[in-house]
Amino acid sequence: MQRFHSYPVRLDGTDPQATRDAIRNDFLSAYSLFEALFGLLKDDNVFYRRSERTRHPMIFYFGHTATFFINKLVLAKVIDKRINPDFESLFAIGVDEMAWDDMDSSRYEWPGVDAVREYRTLVKTQVLELIDTLPLQLPITQESPWWVILMGIEHERIHIETSSVLHRQMPLEEIRPSEAFQYCNDAGLPPENSLTVISGAAVQLGKERGDPYYGWDNEYGSARMEVPEFRTATMLVSHGEFLPFVEAGGYEDPVYWDEEGMRFLERSGAKHPPFWVAKAAGGYRLRLLDREIDLPMDWPVEVNCLEAQAFCRFKSVQEGRAYRLPTEAEWVRMLESSTALAGERFDDTNANINWNHFASSVPVNTFLQGGLYDVVGNVWQWTSSTIDGYTGFEPHPVYDDFSLPTFDGKHNLIKGGSWASTGNETLRHSRYAFRRHFYQHAGFRYVEADAPAESMPENIYETDSLVAQYCEFQYGPDCFGVKNFARNCAEHAVAFTASTPQKRALDLGCATGRASFELARVFDDVTGIDFSARFIQVGTALKAQGQIAYERVEEGDVTTRQIHSLEEFGLKETAGNVQFWQGDACNLKAHFSGYDLIMATNLIDRLYEPERFLAQVHERLNDGGILLLTSPYTWLEEYTQKAHWLGGYYDENGEAVESLSGLKAILSPHFELLETFDVPFVIRETARKYQHTLSQMSVWKKR
Amino acid sequence: MQRFHSYPVRLDGTDPQATRDAIRNDFLSAYSLFEALFGLLKDDNVFYRRSERTRHPMIFYFGHTATFFINKLVLAKVIDKRINPDFESLFAIGVDEMAWDDMDSSRYEWPGVDAVREYRTLVKTQVLELIDTLPLQLPITQESPWWVILMGIEHERIHIETSSVLHRQMPLEEIRPSEAFQYCNDAGLPPENSLTVISGAAVQLGKERGDPYYGWDNEYGSARMEVPEFRTATMLVSHGEFLPFVEAGGYEDPVYWDEEGMRFLERSGAKHPPFWVAKAAGGYRLRLLDREIDLPMDWPVEVNCLEAQAFCRFKSVQEGRAYRLPTEAEWVRMLESSTALAGERFDDTNANINWNHFASSVPVNTFLQGGLYDVVGNVWQWTSSTIDGYTGFEPHPVYDDFSLPTFDGKHNLIKGGSWASTGNETLRHSRYAFRRHFYQHAGFRYVEADAPAESMPENIYETDSLVAQYCEFQYGPDCFGVKNFARNCAEHAVAFTASTPQKRALDLGCATGRASFELARVFDDVTGIDFSARFIQVGTALKAQGQIAYERVEEGDVTTRQIHSLEEFGLKETAGNVQFWQGDACNLKAHFSGYDLIMATNLIDRLYEPERFLAQVHERLNDGGILLLTSPYTWLEEYTQKAHWLGGYYDENGEAVESLSGLKAILSPHFELLETFDVPFVIRETARKYQHTLSQMSVWKKR
Repeated sequence: MQRFHSYPVRLDGTDPQATRDAIRNDFLSAYSLFEALFGLLKDDNVFYRRSERTRHPMIFYFGHTATFFINKLVLAKVIDKRINPDFESLFAIGVDEMAWDDMDSSRYEWPGVDAVREYRTLVKTQVLELIDTLPLQLPITQESPWWVILMGIEHERIHIETSSVLHRQMPLEEIRPSEAFQYCNDAGLPPENSLTVISGAAVQLGKERGDPYYGWDNEYGSARMEVPEFRTATMLVSHGEFLPFVEAGGYEDPVYWDEEGMRFLERSGAKHPPFWVAKAAGGYRLRLLDREIDLPMDWPVEVNCLEAQAFCRFKSVQEGRAYRLPTEAEWVRMLESSTALAGERFDDTNANINWNHFASSVPVNTFLQGGLYDVVGNVWQWTSSTIDGYTGFEPHPVYDDFSLPTFDGKHNLIKGGSWASTGNETLRHSRYAFRRHFYQHAGFRYVEADAPAESMPENIYETDSLVAQYCEFQYGPDCFGVKNFARNCAEHAVAFTASTPQKRALDLGCATGRASFELARVFDDVTGIDFSARFIQVGTALKAQGQIAYERVEEGDVTTRQIHSLEEFGLKETAGNVQFWQGDACNLKAHFSGYDLIMATNLIDRLYEPERFLAQVHERLNDGGILLLTSPYTWLEEYTQKAHWLGGYYDENGEAVESLSGLKAILSPHFELLETFDVPFVIRETARKYQHTLSQMSVWKKR
Repeated sequence: MQRFHSYPVRLDGTDPQATRDAIRNDFLSAYSLFEALFGLLKDDNVFYRRSERTRHPMIFYFGHTATFFINKLVLAKVIDKRINPDFESLFAIGVDEMAWDDMDSSRYEWPGVDAVREYRTLVKTQVLELIDTLPLQLPITQESPWWVILMGIEHERIHIETSSVLHRQMPLEEIRPSEAFQYCNDAGLPPENSLTVISGAAVQLGKERGDPYYGWDNEYGSARMEVPEFRTATMLVSHGEFLPFVEAGGYEDPVYWDEEGMRFLERSGAKHPPFWVAKAAGGYRLRLLDREIDLPMDWPVEVNCLEAQAFCRFKSVQEGRAYRLPTEAEWVRMLESSTALAGERFDDTNANINWNHFASSVPVNTFLQGGLYDVVGNVWQWTSSTIDGYTGFEPHPVYDDFSLPTFDGKHNLIKGGSWASTGNETLRHSRYAFRRHFYQHAGFRYVEADAPAESMPENIYETDSLVAQYCEFQYGPDCFGVKNFARNCAEHAVAFTASTPQKRALDLGCATGRASFELARVFDDVTGIDFSARFIQVGTALKAQGQIAYERVEEGDVTTRQIHSLEEFGLKETAGNVQFWQGDACNLKAHFSGYDLIMATNLIDRLYEPERFLAQVHERLNDGGILLLTSPYTWLEEYTQKAHWLGGYYDENGEAVESLSGLKAILSPHFELLETFDVPFVIRETARKYQHTLSQMSVWKKR
């Protein structure tokens, strides 16, 4: 078959032109492999179908990876012109199954496939132009504009992997088989699995900042784990090994499933692994990318984490021993004990990975890597470890919600890569996690160990001290006698809209959502929007569970657990009026309009193009509607390039320009300024250290 | 002669072992050249002589470069054990002629030369061990421990240059001529100088962060200057060209000197350039490193900036044209128009630099570099530009007062290097500045231009926003009704010492000095000590001039000029009781003792080893004396490694440890805790943004 394999670019070369060329090839190979996959869709109508209910139609993904390049390049200030603002808003968000991803199709008018194809070409031209012309300083560091390009490439590679899963879920009649992708013809009886002893050792996890390959935020930092001796399945669990569980009615017997597993069974109605197709005459076939074949009993079974765990319980009961999924650290011990590494990369000559062999699985006894088969490649392997940041974790500023929202105890790590894994996914330090009920080209191997799997405490906000600080700011007690800022602003907003309709309100830059909830006391319908999923998830959790817990810093590393509920603020009754979404104030989806009130507190000096937001905000307000802004005008180049500051600079005559003048200049054509006054707020950093700020509130009435 | 030339190490190699070897060679060559220079001192007694009144005796310099390695390695937390704490305090500070450098020899007991030689050997062993064992990640960045080693090497290279000047100022009979250093034998009639036109162009100044060579903080950032066409002396000014100025009585005629020049003449009694030695029979000889020769008329004259400017005025009067010193940007235009560069380095094959030709000057018409002679090398060239930070300037955290205290309008840039320049000094972006009355191996070339030299406004604290913030904190108005913190602490200190003697007080971590002045209302003798010269210079300036001016940030880039005087606080009368010194609280000189009060406000959580300071502080207090501490206990790894935190962590039982407990554990053996209470303070960042903190004051009485 056409070989799609490719190798990650080294960041520390000495020849900038060679690195430039390598990045160019990397970009083109990812872009074209992604498009080749979508070539499997039989005709353009299929782009508007969903592979499953919880997902966007295929057209979304087709546009998404291209808009990602532009959105991140704009955010990183590498470019300042968008290609198609509508597309870049429409295709921006909605990949993981997050409560704040707006999946309601009725809101969207999807564009034509040709328009998206054309858009993809424009993006390609733009990225290639950057690759040809951006100054290149070696090594490429996380601050470099090149990091953003590599991020876009690796992001596309993730979607190559996940889209190939979506393709396997599309009805076969919608797919056009392709010669480009060839599946393995080898199939036979399932080999008998066995247990191999892996000796105990300390494992050092995490990648160094100066590592010569691109990495996602969650890979960096360090963690040291003591791994006691354990015994692991020598091979991945094959269809043949899994079949007795299915035939014994394992999918119907609650004894093998935990609460989350039971919810999955109820919702999905699953009776067997997802890519199995039950034959009328009994028995199963297996769905591949573009065809079905008779179930190859010696290929690895593909299941989600919950099914894998159910199998382990089944096998434990059968044999009277304790089987479970391995932890992340145990898998690393297997890797260390294997021959699967070629330097920092997985060795794709002896592993079914990197599209280097087939566009499908192969028998589980094909690739022996030391004492174990398939430590790397074939299908991903679920672990019992939920993903969390290592010590020293820091989100990358251009993609601060890549990992953090998944540190929620609900996302488990998968290791080893599959036949469809490329780029970063083929590196030893790569780390990906999915919801336990999600499907990937993923299966599992079981382990038997005296030690229980080390489990992470489900401490949602422990790793995100900034979010904890905002929780305390919005839900904690008053400091220095200064009134809760979110509540105070909401009360001002309600007062200023007293004589106008109080139906729909938009809280832009809502952070952890307090002001949105407060507005809902009066408004029938409140939309809370924040740029970062890190913050949105707090409001969402409050709405769903009524309370949140976070770790508040007292002194040094010492924290205390804080719990707050909507009930204590009398906000429980009206929380149903609030919807939280993730969005970019500088490029908001069109349907966020028709509001009586738009409130943006402490937002404008954190936007990359505040004037863009301000110049269009009137379009989203009803006539006579109120725009309420607050800001301490703390302009920082980190967030807003100087050319975009609304004030805080000297004009060409040497006169100081105040930010309020900048606001007036932009807003006056559509607004009357009703009032300005100061509203103080206090953000607690530790028990002794606070930020005490005087925000200026300005209230504008749409003419 | 023995060749001492060496080339700076590239930071971006690909072979760590090769880089390690190169750094080892670089270190050894600098260390041995420095020691070879001190081998010129005839016997050990000479080490205790000063080259001139304002300088320490030679023994100080001999120890200084070695202690620098240890002090910076400790500060950067690369090592945690000192070699000789007394030496590392004694030899730490006192190089530039700063008011807070403690030059009073009566305070010091200088150790024997052999003890210092032995110390130098121990340091050499320590540094070599680090070079052999430290993990090396390429490229070396400013955060790397290797940067600190390179800093030590480059610091030693600066002292090679400046010590060779001190040697030229020592009485000849104290010097033992050496074969290692050979001077040029070539001398003749002065060639006639001429003017060469340099076309106008825009000049881009400043070095990029990723530049492949070590740089000092002041080299980074960027500045773009438009340089109009000008005419420059083709050669440096020779002794022969300078002589008529001397013979015309130029050193006695006030018309050629500005106010600062007149003060220099009065203080020094200079009648001719410094290295000229008047012969009894008339005429001059020239002092070299280790000998005197007849004044070679075609060698470049060596003068300070004030003398160079006086000559320009003389020549302007003579010829009725406007001559002046070139600006930094004009010199860069000369460099760009020349053939003096070999990549990023100056080409030492065609320039008298890097000890590659002679240990002396050569005739000014020896090295033609394009249209001009000696754009690079022979002697440094004074410019009319005072040194300032480029846009984006940031002090290096391990040496935050390398440049900032020189951004005072009193230090002018010298460019091009001399025969004694090595390492960083031979790089195109190197930037060094000295007081205008200082001597180096420095001369000048004049320019004639229609445009006046662009002069920097003398805005002392404009480039140091942190110092400006502290000035406002200590001398600005109260915010949020919170009393001035320095004054408040001083008042508490006075109250707590009411029943004990109030003679001598130490204000450790005095920052910009307000509390020291406040204590002097009551105490007879107050010592203010801070780690950074950036802060010390404010108190010193207040004491000397009675007032300070700084730029306070209002919004964004907009600032307002603030002026405060001791008089407005009623502190003028008692300011004479205060002395400010630079010092390290964790390794303070022994003579800072015998105090009735030691106050350390907001200091302990910024020390690298707070327990070291606390465990010894009782030795500096008189019996019954008071130790007054305040801290918000904001422990940050940036300042204090976790192992040294006094609290804010969980102990082995999982119990939270408060910092006050940590204080008690260390101080109890020698102190009784009298009282603890909170003292709030507010630091203004902008007109709207403040830090509002509750410091805990603890008052300890020495048993």
